[in-house]
Amino acid sequence: MENNFLVKDINLAPKGEQQIEWVSNWMPVLDGLYEKFNKTGVFQNKKIALCIHLEAKTAYLALAIKKMGAQVWVTSSNPLSTKDEVAAALAVNGIHVFAKHAASKTEYWSYLESILKNKLDATVDDGGDICEYLHEHPEYGINIKGICEETTTGVNRLKALEKEGNLKYPAIAVNDAKSKHLFDNRYGTGQSTWTAITHLTNLNIAGKVVVVAGYGWVGKGVAVRADGMGAEVIVTEVDPWKALEARMDGHRVMKMEDASSLGDFFVTTTGLSDIINYGHILKMKNGAFLSNAGHFDFEIDIPTLKKKAKSFTVVRKEVEEYKLENGKTIYVLARGGIINIAGGLGHPADIMDMSFSVQLGCLYYFLSKEDSEAKLYSVPEEIDRLVAEEKLRVEGIQIDH
Amino acid sequence: MENNFLVKDINLAPKGEQQIEWVSNWMPVLDGLYEKFNKTGVFQNKKIALCIHLEAKTAYLALAIKKMGAQVWVTSSNPLSTKDEVAAALAVNGIHVFAKHAASKTEYWSYLESILKNKLDATVDDGGDICEYLHEHPEYGINIKGICEETTTGVNRLKALEKEGNLKYPAIAVNDAKSKHLFDNRYGTGQSTWTAITHLTNLNIAGKVVVVAGYGWVGKGVAVRADGMGAEVIVTEVDPWKALEARMDGHRVMKMEDASSLGDFFVTTTGLSDIINYGHILKMKNGAFLSNAGHFDFEIDIPTLKKKAKSFTVVRKEVEEYKLENGKTIYVLARGGIINIAGGLGHPADIMDMSFSVQLGCLYYFLSKEDSEAKLYSVPEEIDRLVAEEKLRVEGIQIDH
Amino acid sequence: MENNFLVKDINLAPKGEQQIEWVSNWMPVLDGLYEKFNKTGVFQNKKIALCIHLEAKTAYLALAIKKMGAQVWVTSSNPLSTKDEVAAALAVNGIHVFAKHAASKTEYWSYLESILKNKLDATVDDGGDICEYLHEHPEYGINIKGICEETTTGVNRLKALEKEGNLKYPAIAVNDAKSKHLFDNRYGTGQSTWTAITHLTNLNIAGKVVVVAGYGWVGKGVAVRADGMGAEVIVTEVDPWKALEARMDGHRVMKMEDASSLGDFFVTTTGLSDIINYGHILKMKNGAFLSNAGHFDFEIDIPTLKKKAKSFTVVRKEVEEYKLENGKTIYVLARGGIINIAGGLGHPADIMDMSFSVQLGCLYYFLSKEDSEAKLYSVPEEIDRLVAEEKLRVEGIQIDH
Amino acid sequence: MENNFLVKDINLAPKGEQQIEWVSNWMPVLDGLYEKFNKTGVFQNKKIALCIHLEAKTAYLALAIKKMGAQVWVTSSNPLSTKDEVAAALAVNGIHVFAKHAASKTEYWSYLESILKNKLDATVDDGGDICEYLHEHPEYGINIKGICEETTTGVNRLKALEKEGNLKYPAIAVNDAKSKHLFDNRYGTGQSTWTAITHLTNLNIAGKVVVVAGYGWVGKGVAVRADGMGAEVIVTEVDPWKALEARMDGHRVMKMEDASSLGDFFVTTTGLSDIINYGHILKMKNGAFLSNAGHFDFEIDIPTLKKKAKSFTVVRKEVEEYKLENGKTIYVLARGGIINIAGGLGHPADIMDMSFSVQLGCLYYFLSKEDSEAKLYSVPEEIDRLVAEEKLRVEGIQIDH
Repeated sequence: MENNFLVKDINLAPKGEQQIEWVSNWMPVLDGLYEKFNKTGVFQNKKIALCIHLEAKTAYLALAIKKMGAQVWVTSSNPLSTKDEVAAALAVNGIHVFAKHAASKTEYWSYLESILKNKLDATVDDGGDICEYLHEHPEYGINIKGICEETTTGVNRLKALEKEGNLKYPAIAVNDAKSKHLFDNRYGTGQSTWTAITHLTNLNIAGKVVVVAGYGWVGKGVAVRADGMGAEVIVTEVDPWKALEARMDGHRVMKMEDASSLGDFFVTTTGLSDIINYGHILKMKNGAFLSNAGHFDFEIDIPTLKKKAKSFTVVRKEVEEYKLENGKTIYVLARGGIINIAGGLGHPADIMDMSFSVQLGCLYYFLSKEDSEAKLYSVPEEIDRLVAEEKLRVEGIQIDH
Repeated sequence: MENNFLVKDINLAPKGEQQIEWVSNWMPVLDGLYEKFNKTGVFQNKKIALCIHLEAKTAYLALAIKKMGAQVWVTSSNPLSTKDEVAAALAVNGIHVFAKHAASKTEYWSYLESILKNKLDATVDDGGDICEYLHEHPEYGINIKGICEETTTGVNRLKALEKEGNLKYPAIAVNDAKSKHLFDNRYGTGQSTWTAITHLTNLNIAGKVVVVAGYGWVGKGVAVRADGMGAEVIVTEVDPWKALEARMDGHRVMKMEDASSLGDFFVTTTGLSDIINYGHILKMKNGAFLSNAGHFDFEIDIPTLKKKAKSFTVVRKEVEEYKLENGKTIYVLARGGIINIAGGLGHPADIMDMSFSVQLGCLYYFLSKEDSEAKLYSVPEEIDRLVAEEKLRVEGIQIDH
Repeated sequence: MENNFLVKDINLAPKGEQQIEWVSNWMPVLDGLYEKFNKTGVFQNKKIALCIHLEAKTAYLALAIKKMGAQVWVTSSNPLSTKDEVAAALAVNGIHVFAKHAASKTEYWSYLESILKNKLDATVDDGGDICEYLHEHPEYGINIKGICEETTTGVNRLKALEKEGNLKYPAIAVNDAKSKHLFDNRYGTGQSTWTAITHLTNLNIAGKVVVVAGYGWVGKGVAVRADGMGAEVIVTEVDPWKALEARMDGHRVMKMEDASSLGDFFVTTTGLSDIINYGHILKMKNGAFLSNAGHFDFEIDIPTLKKKAKSFTVVRKEVEEYKLENGKTIYVLARGGIINIAGGLGHPADIMDMSFSVQLGCLYYFLSKEDSEAKLYSVPEEIDRLVAEEKLRVEGIQIDH
Repeated sequence: MENNFLVKDINLAPKGEQQIEWVSNWMPVLDGLYEKFNKTGVFQNKKIALCIHLEAKTAYLALAIKKMGAQVWVTSSNPLSTKDEVAAALAVNGIHVFAKHAASKTEYWSYLESILKNKLDATVDDGGDICEYLHEHPEYGINIKGICEETTTGVNRLKALEKEGNLKYPAIAVNDAKSKHLFDNRYGTGQSTWTAITHLTNLNIAGKVVVVAGYGWVGKGVAVRADGMGAEVIVTEVDPWKALEARMDGHRVMKMEDASSLGDFFVTTTGLSDIINYGHILKMKNGAFLSNAGHFDFEIDIPTLKKKAKSFTVVRKEVEEYKLENGKTIYVLARGGIINIAGGLGHPADIMDMSFSVQLGCLYYFLSKEDSEAKLYSVPEEIDRLVAEEKLRVEGIQIDH
């Protein structure tokens, strides 16, 4: 079969390859699983599609699948995060990649079709679009043994389908794996949020007031790192137990209404919309910074801010300055998008190594067994454990048994 | 009805009352629930029995129940932890208390009988002995609306009974409440373990190597406080995810076999037996300290140590010195019993305030509803939430809604 | 010469010996210096007096000096901290000890005379009373080669004498040694303050507001340990640089006037009087705890509190409850005396090992050289270094050169 | 007078102005001193030269001096750190700037001459070249009232001159100010070192071993931030007291020889050369990262590494990969130059605000008094205090008095 693909500029491939080469050094868990699975021949001649954030770390996952003998199709789940050089690198390495940075909605869906019409055996989904498409075009889904969904959003769509009795394919909620959610949300986002904020602003965090909205895994990670940088941390929560945990971890806890006037840096981590609204913004100190570490860009009400502000200027890469009607100046980082990706380099490679290994393990799980019932599965304990134990092994950590 | 009771010395009552008076200052959550429940009249004329560690904090719970109009019987779940002065204080305040410090097994079961023959409406159990007795003497259990079990041990006995189809009464697993297990294990045991160790030894923890066996809630609490005192913390685990969490929290992780020769202080928190065995002890540095923060005293193999050591001396209150055959000296704190209770003052009052409030809430839950089915219940979300929200209220913490 | 001494009860000696035996395990630096100095014969037949807090750790220092061939006299610098059992243990081991717990002023000075009339070669002083006496009775000071002064108070008296031109003896400011002030104030007092507070109160520190007055070495130690226990820490200071350090270490910084109403626990560490005055106390939350970790008991204005409070009760060992005219209740720990000694077990033995080794080194310094000029000396770099390097050696820490 | 200057491209000015505009928001202490000093007229018509790292923060200092009525000359103390756009911005704003990125040695000295021949009243020096030049050309130094030297290197040259009796001008050691060295070395370098490392590598620090060479202010800052990111920290030192401090702060302490094989990330902070030599490098784990946070680029022996390595590749911006003869791969960040500047954005603006305010204060000090004696001065207490108190004021922190 011809190596069909669609990328912006195939000449960018060397640059993309260098990026993939770099992350390949820090993804030994994936390498370990590759070794194990490759011997089984399970991936041999299978057709696999991935709809993911197209960057070096996911590219390395795609290449590992191909190396095991599968045919691999890739598109991007988010045109804004697509790296054209990485797409080019995949293309020259025999992956059927259809993706361009800043692709239009129409292009996006046409890429998806180019991929899905190949009657895949299994897919990796990030947000649920593959799943949606395959439900609308069941003729393309006849070979599907399973869909591995990365995000909570995608899982919620799957749950809705299952509840209505309309789920047509076996699917798995990858985020549920302990090897994923205990690590990438807390340690990965926790650290990379602060790398992004300090890199974008070049300001000192020690002695500043950091307001963290939400004390789930992401919020805990962001708060503990802020504490580790010498900040005074204030947490806002709606859950009473998490609020008490935050307090007993030494943080101040209060309503956002009260925290608004105290913070120097705000980081939302709740997954809910309008956590910081325009009323909050008006109360803020002159020079406060707003940022979001949650998946969606709706935690800060930027539309209203944009509408009501007297002026708006990009004063630095990914730093927007808003002059408010009350005379104060407020800064928004990375336009309220997920700060560590939109305003930084994304999660550390060695943390995503665990998450993407869970993905690979889930693909293996579906491909290696008889056809599964069409329902939503949890990540099997043995896959989850395999990833954790491989991580311990590559880190040289021995534990008791 | 006459105020029958059996205590060691009723004249100790004033001393016991002073202790109860002290803890009453730090149990405002229980006071809050008392206010709410008292208005309902639900406890009026009910017969309630408690089999608990008999000390000031549990005594305050018993008195609150009595003040709401119930008749209250109390005995101790552990004769060694019984405080005679607190028993006396309960007796003079109209509680039917049957308990003496260091009571014999025979006395213990006779106390239990004295209490349970009163055909109670509900009970608080700590370890499952009330439950066992009522299954053996169903004639005493005819009015029971529910049993509130504090410990994991007790809950395991309940689960076994349920599985066999032999559970005769509704029961509730109090430890499952988020208001309990998220707080008393981590923050309560974490702190009070170190108060006990530093008070017993008068040694500096900064710059020492602390080996924590287990990274569950107790282990996490003990480790974070050791870190906060300037120790180098080593964690041993059997669970790969917890091992990785420990590592990413900055601790070293290894097998006990390897940690044995590195530690200055050892704290076991696993709930499993022989975590530190004699082979480990032989490898230890001269002057190492062994202690246990788990519920049972079997985590360190003290019987073998005692048998094999060349000599054994009590060199300080709750500090035993063992001279080993290899010439080294090892110290055991609190005879390997749970260090914060056996070698200290127990959990902080303001933390147990939450745990005992869950107990009160569970009693209320059973008493306020129609007869429940005989099975093992989780703590109802609304009771759990009531406790957490009351804690927030008394701490003056406002959260978003 | 006969072994003259004066103690309360010589039969207490075995109990005292057990205490000294315990601390002897944790003072290897002193042992190391003993080995070095003993070979030189410098202490042989010398007459040495110590006026110190008479407890196990200082007793071990006295015994080490005797073992090197010196005659040793000991009295206590503070009758309230004197341990009669330790005094007895010294007496039966050939030390000329004159000390009784709670001795009167008259007795105190008579003890000092009994000691100093022996025309000593060198002395260890703690507060300056030996020095004062020897200036008043120069006939006793004719052999003095040097006075080693432990405290800042004593050093200030020495400085005054030197400035007036009246200093008659060589003296050394032991507290200036890096091996002392960098460690015992910060790590020793920092930890033992919290052992004392948690042991006296049995309350949870996580989630509480701790106000630390002063951010010198003691304040830094108390604050970092409070932080490590999950407290929210507020610092008050008069020095702008220390205030900024506290802020950039993540603490809130404000005036005591503003902190008064926020604290759950107050710890003064300033060395200055009336840091917490009655006006501050009136603003405090109901149930606040006051304590002092500074040398003197004047940092909290307890006299005024005692005079103005409606009532005053000892509710627990070293916990005094004051009912204020405004209806609130305030607790004072250890009567405002230095909390880790007056309300606890004193500094950890392994920290004082360094401090008392500096003392021994300074005695050695004076005894081993020709007569020194009568002036105030700093601890010689070589002595200071000797102690630090010995500490590294006994801890098994190797450093670069 | 004509506005003479020499820059690479005057058209870059708008970009430079935007950068200066940004930092101006975070330098309120400098603004405060400007307000105070401007009223005095002391800078009016004075001739001032600055030889500094030419970037936005120092540019803002230069502009403040000009706004007070002085004529200002600027050159760069390090051609590699020169930002041409900032130089252009200064030029269009009336500063006599002579600087180009990557200027040759010859150009460098010609720029210095262009500036110094103007017979300045006072100068800011960074490394001592102005000072050297003025000693060689005393005809240009006839009006000099004082030289404000930023660095320790420069101060050492001044001390040597003073010792030889050859110091011709009054000079001041700016780094000695508490408002500078207590803050920019510890908090500024501590944070920005980690921003640079995480931005350059996109790796997770939690659970990694970080080896910090040196435990002075910079080392302490780098270590505490590594600890705050979840690393296991190992410290190497030559000073026994600092080694013990590191240990009691919870870090492991050992020789570099032993630490070599343990570290994932190495950061040197000693100011000494060859702290990491080729022998150390050969022992390192595959994939280790070497970086330096000290002033000079000689702490890691890169020349030998370059000579002996089998290959050398730039794999990422400021990340060099060395393949060693032993088969392992080692990465060097920012070519061993000071990582936070050479591989990052430099110190946070709000920390440098304090340091540059000390500079301004020292200029004011010399200009406002009669001619000073030619010797090396400490920063006057009142200037140092002025900066600290202004920082407290702008942060809204009130302290006791």
